[in-house]
Amino acid sequence: MKVIQIVGYKNSGKTTLMNRLISHFSGMGYAVGSLKHHGHGGAPDLSTEGTDSARHRESGSILSGVEGEGVFNLHGDVSPETVFDFYRVNGIQLLFMEGYKQAPYKKIAIGNDIEVLLTETNNVQLVISDEPFRTKGIPSFTFAEEQEYIGYITDWVRGEWVE
Amino acid sequence: MKVIQIVGYKNSGKTTLMNRLISHFSGMGYAVGSLKHHGHGGAPDLSTEGTDSARHRESGSILSGVEGEGVFNLHGDVSPETVFDFYRVNGIQLLFMEGYKQAPYKKIAIGNDIEVLLTETNNVQLVISDEPFRTKGIPSFTFAEEQEYIGYITDWVRGEWVE
Repeated sequence: MKVIQIVGYKNSGKTTLMNRLISHFSGMGYAVGSLKHHGHGGAPDLSTEGTDSARHRESGSILSGVEGEGVFNLHGDVSPETVFDFYRVNGIQLLFMEGYKQAPYKKIAIGNDIEVLLTETNNVQLVISDEPFRTKGIPSFTFAEEQEYIGYITDWVRGEWVE
Repeated sequence: MKVIQIVGYKNSGKTTLMNRLISHFSGMGYAVGSLKHHGHGGAPDLSTEGTDSARHRESGSILSGVEGEGVFNLHGDVSPETVFDFYRVNGIQLLFMEGYKQAPYKKIAIGNDIEVLLTETNNVQLVISDEPFRTKGIPSFTFAEEQEYIGYITDWVRGEWVE
């Protein structure tokens, strides 16, 4: 499973890029998965209030799930490692992760304040920003060069992959 | 991981019993998980409309997840076997499943029309119904005997477990 992280500050365009890449690579035939880290502000709004899943959790269930027609919704306190394995055993070939600046996978840094961002993360392989970014030998594109950076990422995913 | 299924027709009290058992056994210190089969009527209302998870799925993500403060919400087309493994590797000791009449695990049959229900399922170890049920040598309790059937299930879970 190839993992690409998208990191950037708030309102840097991470969500848009995530969806653009999911759409592009699933259209190419890849089995794509996605994982978003919900940063500051507590647990994600999982919108399960009043559902059976939420009631099970209130009753003391550590991990509660609902399944219908092959679509599963699992909700619970689980370890990140097991989540990764779960993606893997379900045949995901390409996982896009939003956030998790401290995780070790290959990253696309997006938005502004890239210089600062680079001090807080690691393994950045590509920069996408408003203005051309020309330091530290990292390939970069501007947001306007969408066709170019999509092409670059496609070549990258198709190429040899060393973790 | 010990698995107990709760099977019964619509409005037979499955949801109430699920929550009662989750609460009881988590209170005893068991790591409890739950899994509900959403029967007829399509995929479950996963209430993810407008969320990042739903947008990822629309973009083509097979499996999309959101995590915040250790709480994961995973949504996707996954195999039941991998879901079971996921519960297991996350340390669940006791899994209560609602529905899945065709699955092979030990079952509590609940509600009315138990005679008919028994022709559609298997491995029923206990019956809970409005009226005493006295056939086929299956232990049974009425809904009014809550203390008794909770005690019985507790002894059962504590005892030797042969799949």
